[in-house]
Amino acid sequence: MSDDSRPKVLVLGAGFGGTGAARKLRKAPVDVVLVDRHDFHTFQPLLYQVATDVLDPATVGHPIRELVHQQENLDFAQATVSGIDLDARTVTFEDWEPQGYDYLVVGLGARANFFGTPGADEHAFPLYTLPQAVRLKQHLLRRFEEAAKHPALVEEGYLDVVIVGGGPTGVETAGALSELFHGVFPEDYPTIDTSALRITLVEHGDRLLSMFDQGISDYTRETLTERAVTVRLGELVAAIDADGVDLGSGERISAGTTVWGAGLQPVPLASELGVDLVHGRVPVDQFLRLERHPEVFVVGDMAITTDARSGEVLPQLGSVALQAGEHVGVTIDRLERNHKDPHPFHYVDKGTMATIGRKAAVAVIPPHHLTLTGRAAWAMWGAVHLALLTGGDSRMAAMTNWFWSFTTHDRPARVLIHPDDED
Amino acid sequence: MSDDSRPKVLVLGAGFGGTGAARKLRKAPVDVVLVDRHDFHTFQPLLYQVATDVLDPATVGHPIRELVHQQENLDFAQATVSGIDLDARTVTFEDWEPQGYDYLVVGLGARANFFGTPGADEHAFPLYTLPQAVRLKQHLLRRFEEAAKHPALVEEGYLDVVIVGGGPTGVETAGALSELFHGVFPEDYPTIDTSALRITLVEHGDRLLSMFDQGISDYTRETLTERAVTVRLGELVAAIDADGVDLGSGERISAGTTVWGAGLQPVPLASELGVDLVHGRVPVDQFLRLERHPEVFVVGDMAITTDARSGEVLPQLGSVALQAGEHVGVTIDRLERNHKDPHPFHYVDKGTMATIGRKAAVAVIPPHHLTLTGRAAWAMWGAVHLALLTGGDSRMAAMTNWFWSFTTHDRPARVLIHPDDED
Repeated sequence: MSDDSRPKVLVLGAGFGGTGAARKLRKAPVDVVLVDRHDFHTFQPLLYQVATDVLDPATVGHPIRELVHQQENLDFAQATVSGIDLDARTVTFEDWEPQGYDYLVVGLGARANFFGTPGADEHAFPLYTLPQAVRLKQHLLRRFEEAAKHPALVEEGYLDVVIVGGGPTGVETAGALSELFHGVFPEDYPTIDTSALRITLVEHGDRLLSMFDQGISDYTRETLTERAVTVRLGELVAAIDADGVDLGSGERISAGTTVWGAGLQPVPLASELGVDLVHGRVPVDQFLRLERHPEVFVVGDMAITTDARSGEVLPQLGSVALQAGEHVGVTIDRLERNHKDPHPFHYVDKGTMATIGRKAAVAVIPPHHLTLTGRAAWAMWGAVHLALLTGGDSRMAAMTNWFWSFTTHDRPARVLIHPDDED
Repeated sequence: MSDDSRPKVLVLGAGFGGTGAARKLRKAPVDVVLVDRHDFHTFQPLLYQVATDVLDPATVGHPIRELVHQQENLDFAQATVSGIDLDARTVTFEDWEPQGYDYLVVGLGARANFFGTPGADEHAFPLYTLPQAVRLKQHLLRRFEEAAKHPALVEEGYLDVVIVGGGPTGVETAGALSELFHGVFPEDYPTIDTSALRITLVEHGDRLLSMFDQGISDYTRETLTERAVTVRLGELVAAIDADGVDLGSGERISAGTTVWGAGLQPVPLASELGVDLVHGRVPVDQFLRLERHPEVFVVGDMAITTDARSGEVLPQLGSVALQAGEHVGVTIDRLERNHKDPHPFHYVDKGTMATIGRKAAVAVIPPHHLTLTGRAAWAMWGAVHLALLTGGDSRMAAMTNWFWSFTTHDRPARVLIHPDDED
């Protein structure tokens, strides 16, 4: 399978960017080696559904190995990058021998940015990776089981949740938690007064989902409020501890769980790419390459990606990462198979959406910025995400769980399975 | 919901026995409190499918909480029993206040019995609980990912497996592993010579599945041998270490993984029931009660259960535990609702089956001991287990995964998600 005379494309990170690049190299006369620290690709837009027991982790984490038997020139290694030497064209790993490359595609993602908020690192639950989603899920379930045994805890805010950040992660998590707390758990925990549970969404700016227009922001706030989520706009979270948060205004909100959906920062390896970071992200040229190393491409949340036509900096979204990764794959394919020059990267906006809960979602569809809210957007959200989930089995599993969850108000994935638990 | 004037039935353990008892008390004028250290009921007969990536853990671990909203007189607590005081009629917990009872149903299961085999405790993987199945799964996947990076490991037996015990657990695990190694992994790990992988099943007795007749034992051995499993009969495992096992004969088998399916011993709490254990199990009368404490019932793998008609000691099977638990529920219901005397316990054998792999299983169906092998038994095995899985969503999920696994030779649940992993 590997041929020493063929160029080697090393792809770091099996997110939307890395897998997009790898797949587009299917017909290229190159050997592709895809590397990730996990053996699964994460469908990040649905992590909040793992945390809120709608979907099972395995539905959202899809085996990367499956790509290997779908694509002859692709191999995979589960390994953790420790360093990148651009001049020697070599990547080192914590747990694998160093790998040289002819082309390097870097899509190592980002991590939560707590902006120095005291206590956040220790007490807040980010929702960027699958292990994080599972940890939040287990934390919530443990607390409910504990409160079922000691109902007095509920008054102290033991089950209350504060969500920091009114972007898609915060809004979707708030909506799903509200359903879980007020639709599912009242039947499961009859001894807990679930109507007393408080979910608070704190956003520093003056509206939710600020990438959409004001009408959508208003609809989102109203819908969440109807669903018993307290929305606090123009508020900053100043400190986080195990029992709640302090707002910038000095107000205290008791909460046993604080979810962090407020921002991203680069992974430390971003600083090894020999360029000055812009807002913590790696600047690339219009072909998504490092200016001084045209054999190195950076895609996804790690990069500051600009649309070649509009000149606009694109948001850190899965769809941007996927298209950027695919563009890189096509670029290398053009160079190696067709010996043609690359095209500049142009992002095709296929629409943006967020779901607030049952029968409530928002969507904006190009080219005329058609805006949808409510049931229609919610149905569309389901159809689109079903289509996007990698692998027929994940699609079937998601459909089964969504259908079950919707028709029975139940959460099929609601169990605490931890491999290190006592038996 | 709880009424101080009504008798309180405390059920320890939410396995087949405990949940069987709880469900049969649905109409009884009692308050039922079901306690388990986990928040899920485990469908133990399918644990080997979790370990071999066919089924996702959540399909086999079903939320106990669902029983709570199906049954008005039932409450659940996730807690770990620390002691039982029969005279004071009180159970103490590591993590909950002491609970009194009018009736006590004890179904705390068993744990692996290593029979003092050196190294087993540290190096062998039992398959009795869901966390154990997940640990074995993760161990195997980690080893394959490691060997993909360092192919020389394969020659040292790094990926080879020894399975100790030729009962249903050992046979089913051997069959499923053979399919995984020789049917699924060759495509996933093209750089590993999977044909060199060795699976060895070691049984101390002179045949496999000794609860069946000799013909079934022979069929099972032949089928496993055809599927590249080495069956060693009349052999004892004398010691286990990280790199393999020493047989009683002095022979050494290198293997990076040793699965233990060779026997059970009681949980330590069995010795707190004030009776002399028989073969490590708790003796009960024909009503499944402790002789000196008729308000205490013991069911499942913990008890030595005798069939009241045949006088035979029944095997440690899920079906025996379930029927015993249901019998206890009916008994308490008779006493409290109908004021009638209890009946002695009689076990109805509805058949016994084991699967060896694709299109190969064995089954014995009463009353005439009809024996089935091959495809027919395999199809029946699937239908019966689908019917037995608790909860419509688990059934749908299992059906989806089995269908997928069968038609594509793929394993949808093949990912390593550990909540404590680095992100």
